[in-house]
Amino acid sequence: MNFRVRAATKEDCKDVSRMIMVSWHLQLQRDGFCQNPFFECLVAEIPEEIILIQLKQNFHNIFVGYALYFYTYSTWKGRSLYLEDLYVMPEFRGNGIGKGLLCKVAEVGRSKQCVRLQLSVLNWNTPSRDFYAAKGGQDLTVSEGWHFVRFDGQNLDNLANDAPKI
Amino acid sequence: MNFRVRAATKEDCKDVSRMIMVSWHLQLQRDGFCQNPFFECLVAEIPEEIILIQLKQNFHNIFVGYALYFYTYSTWKGRSLYLEDLYVMPEFRGNGIGKGLLCKVAEVGRSKQCVRLQLSVLNWNTPSRDFYAAKGGQDLTVSEGWHFVRFDGQNLDNLANDAPKI
Repeated sequence: MNFRVRAATKEDCKDVSRMIMVSWHLQLQRDGFCQNPFFECLVAEIPEEIILIQLKQNFHNIFVGYALYFYTYSTWKGRSLYLEDLYVMPEFRGNGIGKGLLCKVAEVGRSKQCVRLQLSVLNWNTPSRDFYAAKGGQDLTVSEGWHFVRFDGQNLDNLANDAPKI
Repeated sequence: MNFRVRAATKEDCKDVSRMIMVSWHLQLQRDGFCQNPFFECLVAEIPEEIILIQLKQNFHNIFVGYALYFYTYSTWKGRSLYLEDLYVMPEFRGNGIGKGLLCKVAEVGRSKQCVRLQLSVLNWNTPSRDFYAAKGGQDLTVSEGWHFVRFDGQNLDNLANDAPKI
């Protein structure tokens, strides 16, 4: 399928938040398109006529997927990228768009001298696990035993409240 | 023990890289103390006389630990923090310095409206797993089955080489 991957603009936030299925595109816009953005985003799009034919309906948006990532840091290896979301609309899967987005993120990473691209995937999500494994992704939870720990809500507040005062 | 936690400065990079046990403090300095830094860092220090008494030797550095973190992003929840490294010199463990650093990172996160603080820990590292669990950290690999996937080296290069050309 004919598609292209390009950097998202502020105007794409509404489409991205529709795909994430959240209503807060203004917050996405604030956090991703500011001076020190919290993330970067690529979008995949196809020529409008393909959608009109495939869906047989009046559908004005040619946006069919996105990849949202940010820069992280390894104290052993240096600059790294973390892929938070990779999404392609179900109707357009199986056309290499997901791979195109993933490869483009890797290309962005290389251009910024990143040595790692990391992501998390759920145990039950075997299609995604297989997809990443087929592309050379190592499952470090399986091979090295890395666990993923989160503090949020009241637990995060409790920590912050206990911070030493200077 | 009397200690304080403060934001690291460019001058601390040499001490931080000594603790990480890498030799590239100039790269740390470049990546962490620039206009859009790849990470932020806190350091823990104690009054010099305590070290002189405890170690019974001439030791000029009062730097005893650090916490290195960066900002990440959840498309479901928004701004988040990731704690890459938390380290306290072995001789000074058990004095609340690790907890002080962790809590200070949480406080930084709260001040930046972050809703999550995340980190990864190895399966065999039960002291760290117990430490985080005792502070309210949820092990999402255990409770939700999150796996951690990495692309690096040739696998990352292969992806980048396959990126669609615009």
